[in-house]
Amino acid sequence: PIFVNRRAEGGFSGIQTFAKLPVCLTPEDLVAGEMDVAICGVPWDSTATGRTGTNHGPLAIRMCDYKGGYGRPHFELETHVDALEELNVCDYGDAPIKVGNTPATFEGIRKFIGTIVESDTIPIIMGGDHAITWPCATAVADHYGYGKVGIVHFDAHADTGADMPGSLASHGTPMRKLIESGAVPGKNFVQVGLRGYWPEQETLDWMDEQQMRTHFMAEIIHDGFDKVLQRAVDQALDQADHLYVSLDVDVTDPAFAPGTGTPEPGGLTSINVLTAVRRLAAEVGIVAMDVVEVSPPYDDRGQITSLLANRAIRETLTGIAMRRQGLT
Amino acid sequence: PIFVNRRAEGGFSGIQTFAKLPVCLTPEDLVAGEMDVAICGVPWDSTATGRTGTNHGPLAIRMCDYKGGYGRPHFELETHVDALEELNVCDYGDAPIKVGNTPATFEGIRKFIGTIVESDTIPIIMGGDHAITWPCATAVADHYGYGKVGIVHFDAHADTGADMPGSLASHGTPMRKLIESGAVPGKNFVQVGLRGYWPEQETLDWMDEQQMRTHFMAEIIHDGFDKVLQRAVDQALDQADHLYVSLDVDVTDPAFAPGTGTPEPGGLTSINVLTAVRRLAAEVGIVAMDVVEVSPPYDDRGQITSLLANRAIRETLTGIAMRRQGLT
Amino acid sequence: PIFVNRRAEGGFSGIQTFAKLPVCLTPEDLVAGEMDVAICGVPWDSTATGRTGTNHGPLAIRMCDYKGGYGRPHFELETHVDALEELNVCDYGDAPIKVGNTPATFEGIRKFIGTIVESDTIPIIMGGDHAITWPCATAVADHYGYGKVGIVHFDAHADTGADMPGSLASHGTPMRKLIESGAVPGKNFVQVGLRGYWPEQETLDWMDEQQMRTHFMAEIIHDGFDKVLQRAVDQALDQADHLYVSLDVDVTDPAFAPGTGTPEPGGLTSINVLTAVRRLAAEVGIVAMDVVEVSPPYDDRGQITSLLANRAIRETLTGIAMRRQGLT
Amino acid sequence: PIFVNRRAEGGFSGIQTFAKLPVCLTPEDLVAGEMDVAICGVPWDSTATGRTGTNHGPLAIRMCDYKGGYGRPHFELETHVDALEELNVCDYGDAPIKVGNTPATFEGIRKFIGTIVESDTIPIIMGGDHAITWPCATAVADHYGYGKVGIVHFDAHADTGADMPGSLASHGTPMRKLIESGAVPGKNFVQVGLRGYWPEQETLDWMDEQQMRTHFMAEIIHDGFDKVLQRAVDQALDQADHLYVSLDVDVTDPAFAPGTGTPEPGGLTSINVLTAVRRLAAEVGIVAMDVVEVSPPYDDRGQITSLLANRAIRETLTGIAMRRQGLT
Amino acid sequence: PIFVNRRAEGGFSGIQTFAKLPVCLTPEDLVAGEMDVAICGVPWDSTATGRTGTNHGPLAIRMCDYKGGYGRPHFELETHVDALEELNVCDYGDAPIKVGNTPATFEGIRKFIGTIVESDTIPIIMGGDHAITWPCATAVADHYGYGKVGIVHFDAHADTGADMPGSLASHGTPMRKLIESGAVPGKNFVQVGLRGYWPEQETLDWMDEQQMRTHFMAEIIHDGFDKVLQRAVDQALDQADHLYVSLDVDVTDPAFAPGTGTPEPGGLTSINVLTAVRRLAAEVGIVAMDVVEVSPPYDDRGQITSLLANRAIRETLTGIAMRRQGLT
Amino acid sequence: PIFVNRRAEGGFSGIQTFAKLPVCLTPEDLVAGEMDVAICGVPWDSTATGRTGTNHGPLAIRMCDYKGGYGRPHFELETHVDALEELNVCDYGDAPIKVGNTPATFEGIRKFIGTIVESDTIPIIMGGDHAITWPCATAVADHYGYGKVGIVHFDAHADTGADMPGSLASHGTPMRKLIESGAVPGKNFVQVGLRGYWPEQETLDWMDEQQMRTHFMAEIIHDGFDKVLQRAVDQALDQADHLYVSLDVDVTDPAFAPGTGTPEPGGLTSINVLTAVRRLAAEVGIVAMDVVEVSPPYDDRGQITSLLANRAIRETLTGIAMRRQGLT
Ligand SMILES: [Mn+2]
Ligand SMILES: [Mn+2]
Ligand SMILES: [Mn+2]
Ligand SMILES: [Mn+2]
Ligand SMILES: [Mn+2]
Ligand SMILES: [Mn+2]
Ligand SMILES: [Mn+2]
Ligand SMILES: [Mn+2]
Ligand SMILES: [Mn+2]
Ligand SMILES: [Mn+2]
Ligand SMILES: [Mn+2]
Ligand SMILES: [Mn+2]
Repeated sequence: PIFVNRRAEGGFSGIQTFAKLPVCLTPEDLVAGEMDVAICGVPWDSTATGRTGTNHGPLAIRMCDYKGGYGRPHFELETHVDALEELNVCDYGDAPIKVGNTPATFEGIRKFIGTIVESDTIPIIMGGDHAITWPCATAVADHYGYGKVGIVHFDAHADTGADMPGSLASHGTPMRKLIESGAVPGKNFVQVGLRGYWPEQETLDWMDEQQMRTHFMAEIIHDGFDKVLQRAVDQALDQADHLYVSLDVDVTDPAFAPGTGTPEPGGLTSINVLTAVRRLAAEVGIVAMDVVEVSPPYDDRGQITSLLANRAIRETLTGIAMRRQGLT
Repeated sequence: PIFVNRRAEGGFSGIQTFAKLPVCLTPEDLVAGEMDVAICGVPWDSTATGRTGTNHGPLAIRMCDYKGGYGRPHFELETHVDALEELNVCDYGDAPIKVGNTPATFEGIRKFIGTIVESDTIPIIMGGDHAITWPCATAVADHYGYGKVGIVHFDAHADTGADMPGSLASHGTPMRKLIESGAVPGKNFVQVGLRGYWPEQETLDWMDEQQMRTHFMAEIIHDGFDKVLQRAVDQALDQADHLYVSLDVDVTDPAFAPGTGTPEPGGLTSINVLTAVRRLAAEVGIVAMDVVEVSPPYDDRGQITSLLANRAIRETLTGIAMRRQGLT
Repeated sequence: PIFVNRRAEGGFSGIQTFAKLPVCLTPEDLVAGEMDVAICGVPWDSTATGRTGTNHGPLAIRMCDYKGGYGRPHFELETHVDALEELNVCDYGDAPIKVGNTPATFEGIRKFIGTIVESDTIPIIMGGDHAITWPCATAVADHYGYGKVGIVHFDAHADTGADMPGSLASHGTPMRKLIESGAVPGKNFVQVGLRGYWPEQETLDWMDEQQMRTHFMAEIIHDGFDKVLQRAVDQALDQADHLYVSLDVDVTDPAFAPGTGTPEPGGLTSINVLTAVRRLAAEVGIVAMDVVEVSPPYDDRGQITSLLANRAIRETLTGIAMRRQGLT
Repeated sequence: PIFVNRRAEGGFSGIQTFAKLPVCLTPEDLVAGEMDVAICGVPWDSTATGRTGTNHGPLAIRMCDYKGGYGRPHFELETHVDALEELNVCDYGDAPIKVGNTPATFEGIRKFIGTIVESDTIPIIMGGDHAITWPCATAVADHYGYGKVGIVHFDAHADTGADMPGSLASHGTPMRKLIESGAVPGKNFVQVGLRGYWPEQETLDWMDEQQMRTHFMAEIIHDGFDKVLQRAVDQALDQADHLYVSLDVDVTDPAFAPGTGTPEPGGLTSINVLTAVRRLAAEVGIVAMDVVEVSPPYDDRGQITSLLANRAIRETLTGIAMRRQGLT
Repeated sequence: PIFVNRRAEGGFSGIQTFAKLPVCLTPEDLVAGEMDVAICGVPWDSTATGRTGTNHGPLAIRMCDYKGGYGRPHFELETHVDALEELNVCDYGDAPIKVGNTPATFEGIRKFIGTIVESDTIPIIMGGDHAITWPCATAVADHYGYGKVGIVHFDAHADTGADMPGSLASHGTPMRKLIESGAVPGKNFVQVGLRGYWPEQETLDWMDEQQMRTHFMAEIIHDGFDKVLQRAVDQALDQADHLYVSLDVDVTDPAFAPGTGTPEPGGLTSINVLTAVRRLAAEVGIVAMDVVEVSPPYDDRGQITSLLANRAIRETLTGIAMRRQGLT
Repeated sequence: PIFVNRRAEGGFSGIQTFAKLPVCLTPEDLVAGEMDVAICGVPWDSTATGRTGTNHGPLAIRMCDYKGGYGRPHFELETHVDALEELNVCDYGDAPIKVGNTPATFEGIRKFIGTIVESDTIPIIMGGDHAITWPCATAVADHYGYGKVGIVHFDAHADTGADMPGSLASHGTPMRKLIESGAVPGKNFVQVGLRGYWPEQETLDWMDEQQMRTHFMAEIIHDGFDKVLQRAVDQALDQADHLYVSLDVDVTDPAFAPGTGTPEPGGLTSINVLTAVRRLAAEVGIVAMDVVEVSPPYDDRGQITSLLANRAIRETLTGIAMRRQGLT
């Protein structure tokens, strides 16, 4: 692990790694540095159906932040936890992409994430479109065992669609792929925030058959987010042994996350999202996370979508550190 | 009614009609197709007083959506209603505009909307600045009878101003024009969301004299949106026989609708607006609707204002379909 | 005081002073016009650590508004108070800036604001980065007495940092500077909205020693904004004799204020901010105010951040007028 | 004439008049100040057929400039002329607009410009869409005599269209209106820069009948701009007694002027435009000028279109001053 | 062929087909309408290596234009040719896309374009990234014969790269694919505008071996565009029997075409590009054309890149019509 | 020197150093790696007088490029030189900044650049506002001797202003500072591209006294860029022993470089700039270079200004490599 910044330089100065964290590029680095968490990118947007641009997600999430980490504290004001002090965290760069070749790229992503989990390091993955959850969560299941991993999935969309004719993969289908392969059984899914006009009855029926536990936005509007989050946390605790969190930024309302490919009005607030991921990391514990669907070219000048993704990662780090310290 | 898209193509592929709906261009088409709803544009912004750009509203509301309709389901997740399956809906194109000539244009708009309502079709009108509600609601009253139509009016502004000297019409005066002509009496108005620094006492007094029922933002902040919406629904049910909904997107906070000409901070959320229009369409029933004041050049890259307007129309369609199915 | 607009012209027509108010350029003008409030700019951004651009804040806050004031009413719909009728208010232009010279500029700002308060006029200051609160509040304390002024400080950040090595001033340190100089003792501070990853424990301990009263965002999320605001109002009443309000727009969530240099997700809404400043002006009374950290180049096309700052000023004016009328 | 800025303050500091010039608001001011030139706005965009937004042209042209004038030199590097020192120039604010009423507004514009020319002051008019040239040039002809005024007209479009049915006026018709009324006969027109797909043969024939002298872009591409400009200057000298320059910014290529309503690729460069207006003002002499079709909401962040319009005005001022000094 | 607009409505009114042309959706329509030219989109960006977003190219090129065609003249000012009157032209909608599956999509594109050429209709294709030239030109060669088609290729890049390991296709390789398959032999290529830092010597040597004729930007800077264009026209005439023009918008300088994925400073002007495509269509004659690499999310607000692509198509239509009329 | 990217990954993948070059952070690294050129940033904008934002220049210039270097060729098509193969080049990160303290920061910059030149490495400096040329060129003169360094200075502005009262430094004064200190005598300056309305006669006279050689834009318009460039090259050869090139991006027309703080219409093209810097590096040879005044928040979405700066650096590298190879 190598620092590539001058100590205590400003957030926007110098080389932009995530939070000015040191860089690792090989599994050997991860092991040598005893890395607890590796933050990495998967700059792939070729399985999106609406607007693209998520291939620039990792770059934007890295460079949107006014705070650095190296040489400066990362002390969270509510919990009084400094995750970057408590944990060994690095920036692991980006997964390789094979242009125009979905199967080869996804196989590469699976291997790339696999080397991280096999190094006993938690991958926090910056997407990319949501289809990458298929190879990423498969890699995690490869390590912990098929059926042993559960997913809490924040999204406006179920992402459980059947393939469209001729489509090899899509950001609308990863959860079905994972269920069908057995990597993550349907009963291990907890979904939060679904709304809008998709999927249709047939897919909802299939989801029920798979015993997926889905919290629609309507439930959140009716009961309040706090109650629904508590249900999701309880279900996650009651679920498989190892938790993977998949955060599609479009679960938030477009006001809070305008820079995404398939925005759906009527969603969560930033406070909802930040609270949720920290609670899951602290109270349930996680083995991997992805933050997907940030599309920088559609973001505003203030890059508020990238920044929300950045903070969701930082809050997850805070939660991981809290759990280490027994603060849950 | 003619489909101009290839079946099941992606939302942003091919010709952009609203929701990939078939096109009708004449009243004969509407009748032949037994159209329940005709979505149409009024690309007019020459009666706006702040920023213009709403003449591109119809175009942007049509092309901002990642979902199509033709060949794909339009199944709403909370209600399990697919409005585009339940109803015959078309894109009726745009009303003719006579550049620089307000009276002639407004007369043309009145006729254009008139042909729709006379075809027993519900017009859903994409503005354009709010002045168009004057000819649009007049056309509806022409058909159903002066005094027989009520309006639920969502807006940050009362739009009941007296004319400025020399002004023929303005987006600040349509509601007064409708009241003064007798098309829609003041007691048939329910207003929701007013705030800010206009109008002055004299106009408020006139509004009281007209027996308009106005729910200021202050009431909403104090009592909560749900209670105020219930009051508005009750008043609408207690009102005239036929309901016209007029939605000025500036009723929402600029965070949710930045692309508008006279934004006023401190407004509603997207959830508020989507909930309200669906309830009115389902529980009260509507004969016409307009969604106005979307100004695409001031919107952000993610086009979240256009998208909110798009979803308000889709939720209204859902409400109309619910009422058809007896789901209220 | 000189009007530079034609009567009743549109908000975006003609010369842009704040709310089409008359211009004063000298203390003599303020006295001759018996000015109650002078709105002025401090176009300085050389002590920002993240993104700059706040030097264009005054310009943007002046020109983003669709409403003028001169010849048009400014009647607030909840309170029925027209602040621009009740009060003598002017646009006092901008403070002089000495490029690249922080000490000389800050001395100039102190004098500039000093001439306003000495004219018995309330300065409402449009920043500029937050470092300007140091000279501005010092000028107010120069007049009312060191220790006699209290500050209610809305911000995502404590701004109580110790100087970085070599730094003369920074938008992260003004509150410490004011405390250390004795101009505004720590016990006279009420802070609202802090969140995120700064400052560290050592600074929080120093803040406690100074007896600063800080309401973190976590408290607001837990108890609700209304309760925390009531606590802040009570503390302000219990505080020093003269209240200065310092509003860093980044206290609001980036959804509501994207155009700022160090945005921090998870913040207040626009309704929160507008309610708070009006209540303080009406119930506690203020002698000065600043609105800082608006960075127009990072704002969206709809300029919603500038507009929120504009409305925060207008609501403060409303509160001042309410207090004059005994409406609290 | 009243200065509303502090001496030598930065370009973006304080109240934004054009070039920090003093403000005049009445003809009496113009006479008292012996004004040579009055810069004024006509914020009207209701006769545009494509994109609107030109109502914000005057505001943007005033506030886009990093240089002020008051207290700072305005010394042109090629000519060594300081126009703001040589001439008395003021900002005369904006013409009144009557929303939605084209005839009343145009009558008002005609009177507004009339008071300037009757004060022996050269109006330099910031549009607004091109339809305003109709009332503006009519006002100039009212003063100097019908038939006595010539126009050099830079544009991608001929703007000689016959009215569309029902249209009262349009930015595509002002030149025909002026010819038909006799205010400016066709033989007094010199046009430069026309290209694209409009008007059709019938209108071109009409233009020939009127003896308009038109330099198409094809001629400029073939012979070079310098030669064509020389021809235009010669024709202008050979023309009527008094020259009005009408500059539609869309004469430049969209690369140089993206912020306009009907951009047409394949146009002039900024150097062409700046050279041309200065030469006309210096070598032929002008009595009035307009710069129209700047649409700020479609401009880029750097506001390069507004800035080009600003510089075209400044170069015209330089040319006027050169002519005063005998430097032609 | 069906018109979906009201006659003579404004450019931005109503449904947006290219130039308000009638829609065809099947080969039968093309034949029935005796279509000379079919304009169609290929909304595919999954083989781009830099920035994506070209999947929205067809949509943006259709909706950026202030002029319609239906009911309005399309009379070109230099040539006095109205291509839309002379030719039967339609909007043929967009090719089907299979998300994430490059081979299946490219096979679909090949068939889609094949049906057009087999209908004796000239396809003008709006991309999409440049990889689509592979299936598009193959479809043309399928019809006219392998080796019988030549390509004039405008680009900053040679697009003759060897595949990267694992990549199935890329916008950097289509010309090599076409040469290797024999569809378009290297000697049938004329390239214009290459510059920058790619490809390397090895690929340049391969290009020489294939006898490709390449005009680098350096040649254009040295000799002037007109001379180089003449050489390209001469080479095209001397080439294969049937000409395909492939226009990558990045051949122009980023000032003229900022909205593209791999912009390279130092390129052509808009006048260069418009002149070139018209001359080729008129003097050599074409059987197909593509305009690729327009990436709307990276374009400016004025959409100048989309507009340049739009005008390149219109100029090509003008050239086709000129050739029909014997005007070359 | 450490590579922080995976070999041959895409331009926008992974950590963003300039051209994916290896990172050096200490003079020891430079010496150990035998670095020929060190590319570094000076993220300082506190001495700008117009718009700020140049503190993000280094970040944006690093991350705007679709090409990487590491593992991919960097072969220039005109010269057939691969500078990154020929030379040892690294990314040296950014100079330290002391917020709000101009003298301390400038002293730090001087030392920072000093360590590079003392390591026998050519610094290529990404600004930052133009004031940084004062400490940067001073550092170079410290090493090579006062009076031994010459500067070719591309700019719309002379940057030879006398200090404004109270200003410590400004982007309008660096050249005077260098002359007055003796670091770079006036006769060693060659300036290219000046235009607009500054400086005034007095400063021009002073420049003449100092024997500065200035090529105004007027000369370039009159004689053509190539001739003027030849004169500048000849003067540079005739000048001091060691050449420093200072490139203010505003020397180009705003169409080519919209993202800058004090844009001045009527400037150079991108081809002009790229040609000039390569010729100077190849034919005269350079010891240092800066590229300043890139202001990313004002750039367009396509980041064409940052990209032009990026390419100016790459062309300079090409020129340095050509000189090494004897290709001049
Ligand atoms: Mn998803
Ligand atoms: Mn989603
Ligand atoms: Mn309204
Ligand atoms: Mn409104
Ligand atoms: Mn602050
Ligand atoms: Mn803050
Ligand atoms: Mn025109
Ligand atoms: Mn024009
Ligand atoms: Mn290409
Ligand atoms: Mn290319
Ligand atoms: Mn400079
Ligand atoms: Mn400069």
